[in-house]
Amino acid sequence: MTTFSEIAPLLEGQAIEVPSWAYGNSGTRFKVFGTPGTPRTPEEKIADAATVHRFTGLAPSVALHIPWDQVDDFAALRRYAEDLGIALGTVNSNTFQDDDYKLGALTHTDKRIRQKAIDHHLACIDVMDQTGSRDLKIWLAEGSNYPGQADMRGRQDRLAESLQTIYDRIGDDQRLVLEYKFFEPAFYHTDVPDWGTSYVQVAALGERAMVCLDTGHHAPGTNIEFIVAQLLRLGKLGSFDFNSRFYADDDLIVGSADPFQLFRILVECARGGAFEADSDVAFMLDQCHNIEKKIPGQIRSVLNVQEMTARALLLDRDALTQAQEDGDVLLANEIFMDAFYTDVRADLAAWREERDLPANPMRAYLESGYQEQIEADRVGGTQAGWN
Amino acid sequence: MTTFSEIAPLLEGQAIEVPSWAYGNSGTRFKVFGTPGTPRTPEEKIADAATVHRFTGLAPSVALHIPWDQVDDFAALRRYAEDLGIALGTVNSNTFQDDDYKLGALTHTDKRIRQKAIDHHLACIDVMDQTGSRDLKIWLAEGSNYPGQADMRGRQDRLAESLQTIYDRIGDDQRLVLEYKFFEPAFYHTDVPDWGTSYVQVAALGERAMVCLDTGHHAPGTNIEFIVAQLLRLGKLGSFDFNSRFYADDDLIVGSADPFQLFRILVECARGGAFEADSDVAFMLDQCHNIEKKIPGQIRSVLNVQEMTARALLLDRDALTQAQEDGDVLLANEIFMDAFYTDVRADLAAWREERDLPANPMRAYLESGYQEQIEADRVGGTQAGWN
Amino acid sequence: MTTFSEIAPLLEGQAIEVPSWAYGNSGTRFKVFGTPGTPRTPEEKIADAATVHRFTGLAPSVALHIPWDQVDDFAALRRYAEDLGIALGTVNSNTFQDDDYKLGALTHTDKRIRQKAIDHHLACIDVMDQTGSRDLKIWLAEGSNYPGQADMRGRQDRLAESLQTIYDRIGDDQRLVLEYKFFEPAFYHTDVPDWGTSYVQVAALGERAMVCLDTGHHAPGTNIEFIVAQLLRLGKLGSFDFNSRFYADDDLIVGSADPFQLFRILVECARGGAFEADSDVAFMLDQCHNIEKKIPGQIRSVLNVQEMTARALLLDRDALTQAQEDGDVLLANEIFMDAFYTDVRADLAAWREERDLPANPMRAYLESGYQEQIEADRVGGTQAGWN
Amino acid sequence: MTTFSEIAPLLEGQAIEVPSWAYGNSGTRFKVFGTPGTPRTPEEKIADAATVHRFTGLAPSVALHIPWDQVDDFAALRRYAEDLGIALGTVNSNTFQDDDYKLGALTHTDKRIRQKAIDHHLACIDVMDQTGSRDLKIWLAEGSNYPGQADMRGRQDRLAESLQTIYDRIGDDQRLVLEYKFFEPAFYHTDVPDWGTSYVQVAALGERAMVCLDTGHHAPGTNIEFIVAQLLRLGKLGSFDFNSRFYADDDLIVGSADPFQLFRILVECARGGAFEADSDVAFMLDQCHNIEKKIPGQIRSVLNVQEMTARALLLDRDALTQAQEDGDVLLANEIFMDAFYTDVRADLAAWREERDLPANPMRAYLESGYQEQIEADRVGGTQAGWN
Repeated sequence: MTTFSEIAPLLEGQAIEVPSWAYGNSGTRFKVFGTPGTPRTPEEKIADAATVHRFTGLAPSVALHIPWDQVDDFAALRRYAEDLGIALGTVNSNTFQDDDYKLGALTHTDKRIRQKAIDHHLACIDVMDQTGSRDLKIWLAEGSNYPGQADMRGRQDRLAESLQTIYDRIGDDQRLVLEYKFFEPAFYHTDVPDWGTSYVQVAALGERAMVCLDTGHHAPGTNIEFIVAQLLRLGKLGSFDFNSRFYADDDLIVGSADPFQLFRILVECARGGAFEADSDVAFMLDQCHNIEKKIPGQIRSVLNVQEMTARALLLDRDALTQAQEDGDVLLANEIFMDAFYTDVRADLAAWREERDLPANPMRAYLESGYQEQIEADRVGGTQAGWN
Repeated sequence: MTTFSEIAPLLEGQAIEVPSWAYGNSGTRFKVFGTPGTPRTPEEKIADAATVHRFTGLAPSVALHIPWDQVDDFAALRRYAEDLGIALGTVNSNTFQDDDYKLGALTHTDKRIRQKAIDHHLACIDVMDQTGSRDLKIWLAEGSNYPGQADMRGRQDRLAESLQTIYDRIGDDQRLVLEYKFFEPAFYHTDVPDWGTSYVQVAALGERAMVCLDTGHHAPGTNIEFIVAQLLRLGKLGSFDFNSRFYADDDLIVGSADPFQLFRILVECARGGAFEADSDVAFMLDQCHNIEKKIPGQIRSVLNVQEMTARALLLDRDALTQAQEDGDVLLANEIFMDAFYTDVRADLAAWREERDLPANPMRAYLESGYQEQIEADRVGGTQAGWN
Repeated sequence: MTTFSEIAPLLEGQAIEVPSWAYGNSGTRFKVFGTPGTPRTPEEKIADAATVHRFTGLAPSVALHIPWDQVDDFAALRRYAEDLGIALGTVNSNTFQDDDYKLGALTHTDKRIRQKAIDHHLACIDVMDQTGSRDLKIWLAEGSNYPGQADMRGRQDRLAESLQTIYDRIGDDQRLVLEYKFFEPAFYHTDVPDWGTSYVQVAALGERAMVCLDTGHHAPGTNIEFIVAQLLRLGKLGSFDFNSRFYADDDLIVGSADPFQLFRILVECARGGAFEADSDVAFMLDQCHNIEKKIPGQIRSVLNVQEMTARALLLDRDALTQAQEDGDVLLANEIFMDAFYTDVRADLAAWREERDLPANPMRAYLESGYQEQIEADRVGGTQAGWN
Repeated sequence: MTTFSEIAPLLEGQAIEVPSWAYGNSGTRFKVFGTPGTPRTPEEKIADAATVHRFTGLAPSVALHIPWDQVDDFAALRRYAEDLGIALGTVNSNTFQDDDYKLGALTHTDKRIRQKAIDHHLACIDVMDQTGSRDLKIWLAEGSNYPGQADMRGRQDRLAESLQTIYDRIGDDQRLVLEYKFFEPAFYHTDVPDWGTSYVQVAALGERAMVCLDTGHHAPGTNIEFIVAQLLRLGKLGSFDFNSRFYADDDLIVGSADPFQLFRILVECARGGAFEADSDVAFMLDQCHNIEKKIPGQIRSVLNVQEMTARALLLDRDALTQAQEDGDVLLANEIFMDAFYTDVRADLAAWREERDLPANPMRAYLESGYQEQIEADRVGGTQAGWN
């Protein structure tokens, strides 16, 4: 059995990127509830993200979303973040909120609209050059609602062409990461519905094009850890968007719906080298805190990833391999479950204290007065949301 | 084989209630697209609904949603509708857009909030008394997002109590209809997730409490026509909310995703007497026209129901029963499919012409100039939506 | 926080009924693999079940399946079991393996076949009278494969009639328990597909008719713990068939696919009084050990239920209720997860030793020589399976 | 609008390969029902397949399954088939019914077992050389039931190696076709669960390695026609296994569960050139007739494909493209549905009569006396099934 002290060094480098939009309001099509203390500006979102990092040591960068985080001076925003101890991370594009994109963007039949969408991505790369971001993440909200509405195959060809134009502009140290999603907001077909489609598209682009796996973007019953293993094997797992789901793309706190699934995913990450120093896999959150407080929601999320990573690393892989080769189904499963059932929370608390972090980051945050402060300060203005 | 002329009389009485909100804007959590000509007021929605009826003869009433359709004088609104040739139908309550209801309404642990939600329903009944509506439809958006967040069982008890208070106020000619929904906007549990829960709750209330079946509110793979048959057998099928789905509650045009499923549902309606003169089953639409034009979208919808009803009525039920009793699986299926595959469109066009309706209601509408008129007229103001 | 010593007394009475057929061979439609040591007779199955109880103290009874466990002298079989320290439990009927039942049994259009199926159940009750079994469990494999093949509604009526005849014969201390199943072996409709249908049928029968909830018999995404809560609230949860699934009715070891779901189910059991002394809820396994060894598979299963029950009992329900009433979503969830993440295995090992049970029942079994013995002894004859 | 006479020539070449095992008995894990007249030998299966072709003109070849169709002299079997007017088609391998394959075959950790599985495939290629078959179809029943049981990634690597060895032996005019399947008989992971995995594996092999798409092997909600479009675009759609499903891999008659889905799939075939003379896409059935008669079940199946192909070809693709480019969602959908709703049955009946085929093949078969003949003749022996 692997011990906690053996895996402690591997936990040192763990970095989970938080999304700026998690600090703003979000909701469903039925209602977006506002909450006291919600940021009004990109700076306030970044301040909240930095707070998560200060209490956990786990979230050294924050992802941006353009245009939600559009500012005049991204270099200044970068310095602002760095002064707070975090970096600006992945830049996320948005081609789903402009009226022109109602029926498509990078896949649209109208060349003018395709070019507009391409230009938006080129502008995002300009932002990346200023923020020092490595990854351009493209989630395509494109698809169709009714059979016959769209030529699915022609759209696939146009998508390839549009992506190629964007990829050609990506710098040598930058990457294009293509997310896939089963459905929503399109309800009949989406243009990149599964890992296979994303893989085929990025494989055609080149080495710096990768797949993004959002844990909430699969059909019911999908074995997600298999996809993780496969993409790592193919060298094409660019990044994770972590969250939880019971039904659709619920965007709940990672690890809250099926913690054992999160464990299995992280075991495949360990198996595939994604926690090693030379790994380029980005671990990000993509969540909505519709009804719970946002900063504590993010703290819980990064802690969940850390706790489950520790369990995954505790897995005695040598013993497991032996049991697998012996064909001992029950023993192999027992070794696997043993790691999952090990309660790592006390060890992690001690580990944090050794590193001058609060043993219980959640309690420390709640007692810090930060929440009361922002609720008092952030009065007036427009609370940030998905716009 | 049953012939079209034999079923024609049964089509006479078909009435499909359209929802006022289908004429307003709707969308996903990502974006609500506006469209030219969208109504700004309840009156304009009713005018559009009346237009659908004028071209199809199928939609003699329109459902209201409170507070989206709140007006000062409902008696006047009723006269307005009647002057346009339609009636005001089901009144839909709304307990999901007030900040107080973030964690529950009729099920909330706080008695004050439960009472507020109850009072809203009593106010809806007041509206019904003025509009002449028969049905109060309750869709509960209530539930929880995280395991542990709520006491599911306590909520069920509080729901029963709240519903009883509302039911006690329902008039002798009115009904309470309780909708169920698998998920959304709550993502871990919903308080009325399935027909069983709705049935148990309304059975406890009394004879004038019924179940509403929304065709988009089930788990993947659910055999919906079985539920239709069961609720008709139990005398508890109050109403349908028709729409289509591929994945979740997509709210697409009825019959567009799986027309054969719609056929099977309507066959059970015929089997269970729901098309007969003394049936109290209400056939309603509940749809979103996120990207397509709304009035033509509604016309297409009611035509789809009519066309599929005709096919369902064409089913040779005597021959089918014989094949079933003979245990002839293939013949029974062939008889069933024969009705589904029969193209009734030409017969229906002739049927319409005999009744001074346009043979092709869709084309007639598009050529009528109504759409251009509203697009020209409805400038300024705030387009109606889900608020 | 509740402590282990506080919950220890509640664990005393835990009893999990094992199914005789779990010790025989099982498989998929593609292949049933045989294994050395598989029982050839009901007696050998009972001996294996008794072995599971001897090592765990958790499995004091074994369910029978008629005709798979048909013997000439059930009184003798009962004495045989009692001599080995276990009781004979639930009797399961079988109306799916006789050619007559190809298109239905209790629901068949042919009165002769219905009567045959009813008679089989009456014979099962005769067996119960001899074995001292309380429960007659009815799982209906009935349904249809093709739309049109069957009159779903007529079958529901015939089912009610058949069940009434069987129920009338049930003794005062006996119960009829009706299982529901989403699909398989019927692929279009099943006659009792969901808890609502089972509830409606047993509610019509009377007080001693109850619902059986098999954890693998639901649509994807179904919130099973909600159903547990609802049935307990209605006083109609008769029994569980525990197992695990990733996709369909996979019948894997309970707790192996989604341990957190098992926890949530057991929390609702605690919430609803199912672990209390006066509870009549039967906790059974219904599993297939297609590729793993059967006796260790059963040991693992009952241990999984015990371990998760301990976690569920550790839940600090007072603190949880307070957090729920405060509307503190994150705290409520944290309290809930805290119980789930608590590693109870060492405490349970000590608990077992205090009761003269092996601390590690799995290891003790593997070292006991029982497996080697049965593999050596049980040579020749026909290994038991689903026939 | 395209007319039937315009598409008639395209229907000429339609060929649907039937599976030999569809004529044998099949069932679920619960029961395999026998039926009078079931073949006892490969020759009798071929005779039945030839009968389907004789009455429909649609099924000129029959797929074999090794070892279920193992004979001493495949050249003789080929002549036997050809004398009856049909060819021997795809050869299907079987690595799921030998005890050695309990935990894997081409992916097994034990090199001996991998080699055994490879050798079986080489023997299948020997058969192909004798039967003149073009395609070796590999469906892998491999996977695992419990998390931890297997190293999913290592298995992927071993699979690649095993497939390469087999592919190296494939002749210049032969193909290797790799099927994927979501689950069953493995219940936690399957080694080729989705089109992406199959594509990645066959793309690594070479030009004569292709993907087989079984319509029943997807997660709930999967847009299958998208996959069809994608694989045709990539030039990697080797073959179809047609059947229908409501839940899992139900293997029902093609077109019986969701005829509109079949239409959409065939529209993408037309869009992607799969009906053109130079297309190499193989259209096969893979079904189980568990409760219905087998030969009529197959006749119904090939007719369903033909009828839906006719509808798909009737689609006015020029008008559709125009509506798509105009962004007219409702018109595009209407054009699409118009083809689906067109009743082609009378036209097809006339088309058949022009070709000396019975207008109604089903009725002609039932009146032919063939069924009575085989029921009388095939007495004694062992009815063929999945063994």
